[in-house]
Amino acid sequence: QSNVTIYGIVDIGFTHYSGSEWLDNRSGIDSGLQSGSRIGFRGVEDLGNGLKASFVLEESIGVDLGTGGNYTRQAFLALSGGFGTVAAGRQYTPQFLLLGKVDPFETGTVGDINYGRGVYLNGAFAAPDTIRLNNLLAYISPSFGGFNVIAGYTRNGLGDEELTVDGADSGDAKIWAINPNYSNGPLFVGLNYHQVKIDAGDYKDKVWDLGAAYDFGPVRLSAVYGQLKTDSAVTDFKTKQWLIGASVPVGTAGKVLASYARNTIDADGAPEAKARKWALGYTHDLSKRTNLYAAYAKINTNDEADGLFSVYKGSLTTGVDYAKGLNVGIRHKF
Amino acid sequence: QSNVTIYGIVDIGFTHYSGSEWLDNRSGIDSGLQSGSRIGFRGVEDLGNGLKASFVLEESIGVDLGTGGNYTRQAFLALSGGFGTVAAGRQYTPQFLLLGKVDPFETGTVGDINYGRGVYLNGAFAAPDTIRLNNLLAYISPSFGGFNVIAGYTRNGLGDEELTVDGADSGDAKIWAINPNYSNGPLFVGLNYHQVKIDAGDYKDKVWDLGAAYDFGPVRLSAVYGQLKTDSAVTDFKTKQWLIGASVPVGTAGKVLASYARNTIDADGAPEAKARKWALGYTHDLSKRTNLYAAYAKINTNDEADGLFSVYKGSLTTGVDYAKGLNVGIRHKF
Amino acid sequence: QSNVTIYGIVDIGFTHYSGSEWLDNRSGIDSGLQSGSRIGFRGVEDLGNGLKASFVLEESIGVDLGTGGNYTRQAFLALSGGFGTVAAGRQYTPQFLLLGKVDPFETGTVGDINYGRGVYLNGAFAAPDTIRLNNLLAYISPSFGGFNVIAGYTRNGLGDEELTVDGADSGDAKIWAINPNYSNGPLFVGLNYHQVKIDAGDYKDKVWDLGAAYDFGPVRLSAVYGQLKTDSAVTDFKTKQWLIGASVPVGTAGKVLASYARNTIDADGAPEAKARKWALGYTHDLSKRTNLYAAYAKINTNDEADGLFSVYKGSLTTGVDYAKGLNVGIRHKF
Repeated sequence: QSNVTIYGIVDIGFTHYSGSEWLDNRSGIDSGLQSGSRIGFRGVEDLGNGLKASFVLEESIGVDLGTGGNYTRQAFLALSGGFGTVAAGRQYTPQFLLLGKVDPFETGTVGDINYGRGVYLNGAFAAPDTIRLNNLLAYISPSFGGFNVIAGYTRNGLGDEELTVDGADSGDAKIWAINPNYSNGPLFVGLNYHQVKIDAGDYKDKVWDLGAAYDFGPVRLSAVYGQLKTDSAVTDFKTKQWLIGASVPVGTAGKVLASYARNTIDADGAPEAKARKWALGYTHDLSKRTNLYAAYAKINTNDEADGLFSVYKGSLTTGVDYAKGLNVGIRHKF
Repeated sequence: QSNVTIYGIVDIGFTHYSGSEWLDNRSGIDSGLQSGSRIGFRGVEDLGNGLKASFVLEESIGVDLGTGGNYTRQAFLALSGGFGTVAAGRQYTPQFLLLGKVDPFETGTVGDINYGRGVYLNGAFAAPDTIRLNNLLAYISPSFGGFNVIAGYTRNGLGDEELTVDGADSGDAKIWAINPNYSNGPLFVGLNYHQVKIDAGDYKDKVWDLGAAYDFGPVRLSAVYGQLKTDSAVTDFKTKQWLIGASVPVGTAGKVLASYARNTIDADGAPEAKARKWALGYTHDLSKRTNLYAAYAKINTNDEADGLFSVYKGSLTTGVDYAKGLNVGIRHKF
Repeated sequence: QSNVTIYGIVDIGFTHYSGSEWLDNRSGIDSGLQSGSRIGFRGVEDLGNGLKASFVLEESIGVDLGTGGNYTRQAFLALSGGFGTVAAGRQYTPQFLLLGKVDPFETGTVGDINYGRGVYLNGAFAAPDTIRLNNLLAYISPSFGGFNVIAGYTRNGLGDEELTVDGADSGDAKIWAINPNYSNGPLFVGLNYHQVKIDAGDYKDKVWDLGAAYDFGPVRLSAVYGQLKTDSAVTDFKTKQWLIGASVPVGTAGKVLASYARNTIDADGAPEAKARKWALGYTHDLSKRTNLYAAYAKINTNDEADGLFSVYKGSLTTGVDYAKGLNVGIRHKF
């Protein structure tokens, strides 16, 4: 069918997590370590007058267990033209898109800047998913001499627009975000600013992140700094985090990846919680579409941050606190 | 793969519902307003001797939230030949197919004849889904000079054939339906008759609908009248409903849609509940595959029908009673 | 998209089950009688140097109800070369692959050797699924003069690698399996041996099966014998089972299938439970991709085995004990 392109990624590998205060070490085969395993359907239609309609429907698949069925990775319809692109549906946050450009691990494996989200940006403490949002209306400007802007707004970032009894507060998140970027040859600079507001509980986030990268050829260096400020009926706190990263090509098919990151959390009346994480990785292309990868990451915290951070892909809130993680696997794109 | 065709619809837009007695107004982005968002896989095989095997597997997708995973839109295998088509699986009801031909909104948006099903045909009060049935054996006759017949039978229209303890009554629905149609140039006339029987609760529906449409060129006029009679161990009632509709082409790409409908419910020993609904819409083709749409609908009821009717796409039984609804969106077929 | 092949099976038919001690007879339309209805996506990439990467993502679909969304049929990534194939993900067990080669019904319809799993191999009493395993690392050797070996290992055959509290026993299954096969013209011989170990409950299975088939032309005869020994904290028992089968081509498009099987269960301190099953079937090709089928099977047990066996596709543990079953349907491959 000429209207549809099928694409996807099958990524599977071996994982080992250790260094928890109270959990057994965890070894096994997991799906989607470097990149989430997926199958997607997309298409573009030329509407004439420089206008295009396009769509993406991207299903999440767990290759280790055979799970699937939701299209929560991406699902949207877009109109593009000289004005840029307007898209509506479930989409990536501008923040996540920015992090992908400055994280040498491109948000994959245990080296992921979004792993142990407490260490980094927002995720551990804010209710809304920091990767994707529901019901998002997004705008992506054209590039003006390397400069472009991504902006987004949703009134219901977490779920569907529920039916609420007259006068009741919504528990869903109103979010707006703006992300100006500048790319010029080896240079990239990007800023993210977003606000989250949840009526129930009087919850409010203000988040900003500034990232940059420069490709010197033998090494691409990158850095990002960000702050999150949360106010709610229950508690107030502020987190600061930064990361520096390097990506070093080795031969024609290999790349060494490294990052170092620090994080501090200042909660109302509590001593400062601190963590640092370093990660080292290697990817090796078997072809344009298939590569092997290995990554190792380690987190150290002070006593105040015990149990708050983890290299494990998963929610911190349940007390998962693996300090060390190893991923070795293979990724195949189709 | 030459054996499979991928097709689908991505439909997303803005909705606003208001006029409820007790619910907050609801605004937001929703999927599948004019046509349910979907991805489908279908194929046909020529078996020789004029016989063909074909299949449809059609998955429902929520583009606003990224939901998916069920093929409850359509899933069937069919054999076709000179005798017509015999198909088995989950399929549309003959009633729904008929309504789609006489509703100017083609059963889409708030203008949908099936919206606020209480207003119209069957859905609000009968347990079985009036749109699709499980385990349906269907027959579609060839066209004889514009005349054809659709018939269907299922012993388990709601779920799977359950394992019941010896002697227990089944809670599933036995349904048979017949739908003769006549099409000749601008004229269409169709009749639906179906019966529903559920052993548990001694439930029985008898439903008939008669619809017609005539395309005068500058306007296509249509009308449908139907009755539903329900008897059960708990209650007996009868509903009558009719709709008149018009569809008016505007220029080469536009179309104005309008409908007006009335409904009455006579339940045992209760005063007659009455409602009327009108709907106005406009669709504009950006191309053969992509169009913009807008629709507005409003329901008025007498006191006896308070809370029984809604323009909202959803179950009436939970007390949703939005009197007014607006949909504005875009639909892309692929 | 040249990287992906879409394939699948749509199989639907009429079923009738009877002969239960306490359940009503069950009639109806079911999906996946001869072969599970499915849609799959697969691809192969040539990596050079004789190395290939490939993947399979296979979704289970219920055509009678429109269910879908899980890829638990098969989901894996494989690397192939002169050394054979190494694959990781959710995959068939070596035992199931062996049974498919010696069962004249090829594990489909009520005639299925895996139907009424109590009658045959393992399924009724062992916790792990005997058809597919999660997190399986599998190896398939090249063929050396008709001889090859399939081997597999998983530390978490049932679910995902869970997060366990330090020192707690895992309830998941560690399984290893080996399956040497020999094929030479009309002759096939295969052996399966596998062990299951579950730490929680101190559970252990040891299973072996020996199967063979010879194609005489006018008839293909096959036989399989197997034993399962289970030790656990709760109970110990041993089952023995064998099956003989025949497949007889009729004309160019038809095939008669027949099998007879016996099973005994010796549980600690209980009298021997015994069952025998026979099955008769016929398949008729309408084309290379589409065929009709019919199958009938019957189980007889002694008093000790009352309620332990069933021709019904489903879990024995819930007391389903249909002694007789009929399937008539159509299967379409795409």
